[in-house]
Amino acid sequence: MSAEFFQIRARDKQTHARQGVLTTAHGQIETPVFMPVGTAGTVKAIPHQFLEELEADVILANTYHLYLRPGPETIHHQGGLHRFMSWDRAILTDSGGYQVYSHRALRKINEEGVEFQSYLDGSFHFFTPEKAIQLQQTFAADIIMMFDDCTPYPVTESEARESMRRSMRWARRGKEVHCDQESALFGIAQGSVFLDLRRESLDRLAEIDLPGLALGGFGVGEPKLLMYELVERLNDLMPEDKPRYLMGIGTPLDLFYCVRQGIDMFDCVLPTRNARNGMLFTSAGPIRIKNARYRDDGEPLDPGCACFVCQRYTRSYLRHLYISGEIVSSILNTYHNLYFYLDLMNRIRQSIALNSLVELEADFRERYAEFA
Amino acid sequence: MSAEFFQIRARDKQTHARQGVLTTAHGQIETPVFMPVGTAGTVKAIPHQFLEELEADVILANTYHLYLRPGPETIHHQGGLHRFMSWDRAILTDSGGYQVYSHRALRKINEEGVEFQSYLDGSFHFFTPEKAIQLQQTFAADIIMMFDDCTPYPVTESEARESMRRSMRWARRGKEVHCDQESALFGIAQGSVFLDLRRESLDRLAEIDLPGLALGGFGVGEPKLLMYELVERLNDLMPEDKPRYLMGIGTPLDLFYCVRQGIDMFDCVLPTRNARNGMLFTSAGPIRIKNARYRDDGEPLDPGCACFVCQRYTRSYLRHLYISGEIVSSILNTYHNLYFYLDLMNRIRQSIALNSLVELEADFRERYAEFA
Repeated sequence: MSAEFFQIRARDKQTHARQGVLTTAHGQIETPVFMPVGTAGTVKAIPHQFLEELEADVILANTYHLYLRPGPETIHHQGGLHRFMSWDRAILTDSGGYQVYSHRALRKINEEGVEFQSYLDGSFHFFTPEKAIQLQQTFAADIIMMFDDCTPYPVTESEARESMRRSMRWARRGKEVHCDQESALFGIAQGSVFLDLRRESLDRLAEIDLPGLALGGFGVGEPKLLMYELVERLNDLMPEDKPRYLMGIGTPLDLFYCVRQGIDMFDCVLPTRNARNGMLFTSAGPIRIKNARYRDDGEPLDPGCACFVCQRYTRSYLRHLYISGEIVSSILNTYHNLYFYLDLMNRIRQSIALNSLVELEADFRERYAEFA
Repeated sequence: MSAEFFQIRARDKQTHARQGVLTTAHGQIETPVFMPVGTAGTVKAIPHQFLEELEADVILANTYHLYLRPGPETIHHQGGLHRFMSWDRAILTDSGGYQVYSHRALRKINEEGVEFQSYLDGSFHFFTPEKAIQLQQTFAADIIMMFDDCTPYPVTESEARESMRRSMRWARRGKEVHCDQESALFGIAQGSVFLDLRRESLDRLAEIDLPGLALGGFGVGEPKLLMYELVERLNDLMPEDKPRYLMGIGTPLDLFYCVRQGIDMFDCVLPTRNARNGMLFTSAGPIRIKNARYRDDGEPLDPGCACFVCQRYTRSYLRHLYISGEIVSSILNTYHNLYFYLDLMNRIRQSIALNSLVELEADFRERYAEFA
């Protein structure tokens, strides 16, 4: 990787927040960044031109899902994931570690790797750290992730230690086979909620030359305050000059909190999945559009929002589309929720440069009631 | 209605085809026109801006569905269907007659009207010809349809006569209550496959002053050649100066055939429903995108097509989206199929003005293999 993969442009004087830029072969990514999740090589319910309109600089795709379908041969045949998808902005692929974890009834782990059964057809597959990197190099994503053993919660300290140390051995093996200079390979720190283990994990990753670091194994059921505390403490342990990616997180308030602690990258299914379930983010907090109170409500979803959904449609119509099970409901809801997230991150980035992140967050919290 | 509701601008010298324009309070509609079906106040899987991009001048909505959900009160509360949907081009609503027919296990007909059960919750409802017109006036569509008794096929001549005569009595009753000068009320001729009954139906409708005429009860299982023959003969029996609408039809070759006979308006779920089922129209004929032969096919869906789907995506990717059950598959497939239909109608309109419809059809048929 070029020495200029990540540059910090501004630091907020009141917090640990940084504003930077990641430079990839498929464009620059301003950080802190929220990456929409495009599991199967498509962000669900959103055609690419809408993502471009939303100025999504990077999307996330899943190695596990793409490996099972359409399979690496098909993607290789089309010349990589960018060409397969016809998406020429940046792509981050995760390694499959998290998916293997979340389908854990179907897996067997040993030192060599993980045997798992396909959720599609029950067929058996074996992922190793080497194979996960090779697959991601075949997909030719811009940012790729180590294959890790995502530790479940709750877990004993000794189990978490064993799992974390396995991930660290796998990280060394992954690094060995990484040979694509176009892709930035990120390490993933594990260690569950145990600070000493997290520290050990970061120490081990520091021994490997990696352009970025991720915190994995959060958002798996641990108390939120525990995650917040760990993110705060881990911030001090992570190298200043490398991007920090908090995987799978989170709510709008999570983003504020973790940006303040120095996190640069986020991904989460919340805006997209909740959209399809009719849970829509607004500046006053999330709402459930199916609620009867919206039946005859001629107001926009979020009167302060500039997205085309809020500019054009009423809550009454959006409720009707949702209740009727219309595909257009998923499209409009997803667009709005992604707009909400990406616009929020844009305002967060601007506020860092202006040293006003704390004020932005206070202003946001004043109106925003997190969904009970 | 204004005397200028329908104007014929050109006639093809080799056929009975006409090129005209319908003038509504929500814009002009060039004919022959294909109207995308927007059953529940939305064309399935297509946000409005895509319909505008596709230059869809008019869409069809269903009184029966909108009556059951969201209900006339909600639409009235928002100031009519255009405002409810936020769609400011023309809307045609059908009367509900066809939906009552197609859910016929749940209905009871008498002279007064039809009792039917909601497919949503089993509740009982009663539609009369008067109520169907009043509902459509509440929705405030630009073109509204008489409530008819859609005759099933096969049927005996005496049953078809009884059914047609009931529809004609209902047409008189519908006309009586039509008082919204902004909407054009079309009559619907019935009579199944019996030419004498169709003639009688058109005679009865001629006794009522109506700005447009529709042929109903086609595409309900009768042999296609019988429909073609009847459309050809009925063309001579319909007034020259009024728009002719063939309801629920049809395939691309149906459109060519019926335009040649003088039909001006069409609607059909074929492009939209088939899109969601992975059946895509191309200049070489329909294809099933799930077919394994497309797995590694890097060509556009239809190399001659200028739509954004064909400009951007490969068959390989479209197949992957379909196989994966992605919502984006429905979006892209629907866009392409509607583009195919609307572009075809556009070329048909141009060819009429140039007296080259026969040549256009011959050229189209040479490459196009209707799906077996």
